[in-house]
Amino acid sequence: MLIDFKRPTSHIKYLSSLSSVKWIQLALSHPIDILIDHAHCERKAAGVAIQLMFRYPSEPGLAEVLSPIAREELEHFEKILYLLRDLGYSLKALKPPPYGGELAKCIRKDEPNRMLDSFLIAGLIEARSHERLSLLALNSEHKSLKLLYESLLESEARHFGIYWKLAQNKFSKEETYQRLEELSKVETKILSQTFSLPRVHS
Amino acid sequence: MLIDFKRPTSHIKYLSSLSSVKWIQLALSHPIDILIDHAHCERKAAGVAIQLMFRYPSEPGLAEVLSPIAREELEHFEKILYLLRDLGYSLKALKPPPYGGELAKCIRKDEPNRMLDSFLIAGLIEARSHERLSLLALNSEHKSLKLLYESLLESEARHFGIYWKLAQNKFSKEETYQRLEELSKVETKILSQTFSLPRVHS
Repeated sequence: MLIDFKRPTSHIKYLSSLSSVKWIQLALSHPIDILIDHAHCERKAAGVAIQLMFRYPSEPGLAEVLSPIAREELEHFEKILYLLRDLGYSLKALKPPPYGGELAKCIRKDEPNRMLDSFLIAGLIEARSHERLSLLALNSEHKSLKLLYESLLESEARHFGIYWKLAQNKFSKEETYQRLEELSKVETKILSQTFSLPRVHS
Repeated sequence: MLIDFKRPTSHIKYLSSLSSVKWIQLALSHPIDILIDHAHCERKAAGVAIQLMFRYPSEPGLAEVLSPIAREELEHFEKILYLLRDLGYSLKALKPPPYGGELAKCIRKDEPNRMLDSFLIAGLIEARSHERLSLLALNSEHKSLKLLYESLLESEARHFGIYWKLAQNKFSKEETYQRLEELSKVETKILSQTFSLPRVHS
């Protein structure tokens, strides 16, 4: 069992917790499941960006920002597909952890709260992905996985910044960060009830 | 009223009708509505490709083909967004024609028929878009619109070919083309009940 592992030197201040040792051990001991699940996460992230463009078709400046995010997530998705193939695996359906569903329950139904919560949660998921990909990049034993995760990190960081900026363009800084703090606590609580299967968001 | 207009010299043999003069006149006399609606069509097409990847996550070779299609549709979407902005307009919600919804009703519920119908209908929509974009490219009076539609044509043609090839990879040629013919007749029937507003698929 892995005892010693590296943590990134900086962390994202809006995440109210670091990933547990338990998650890191689970993830590092199931590299292919995590890789496949990460492919699904990229595809889902593209889906979320497109869904938001559908929901707010006339919101100024929104599509110009979300469409390139969706394209970039799909590029990552394809990158993982080809790495999986090179390693002798292929995409398969995986039982998802409750993470995304539980976070979605926090989205308030009334506008513009629904929009604020949707942006903040999309950003939180990207931020958590970034934190976990950093851990995978630092600690993966397989060179090709290490390189892949390193290559994805920069844009994941950009994405959570973009979602939080979208929120701030529309809502006051105070309202944005107060709600982000609330949601971040819920996110930490969801992750504290660790899902037993190896997933990016277990 | 426009009487004289150009038709493309070749046509797609699996479309069972050409666009009506009535549609061409409606479209050419409302260039901005058509442009905005076409942006929505590109975004919807990206959504369809991603939705199919969600529905069949373990279908060999599917994601490798659909993800680049989705990215390309989003690139087109962005191209239209920027042209709209240059022309002094922006994206807005438009009441959609019944076309997509009526075609979706033809998708059989049981697998693998659902998959076959989904591929064929996605291909039919791309084929019809191609036929109509050709008409817009040939007949638009605005140079920037003419150039835009010309630039989109080649990949629309590729996309319908890809969907029909996906169908043929999985189903016999006979079954594929028999069903395509049936669906194509329905598509023509839907378009014969012209939607009164200027849309790509009125």
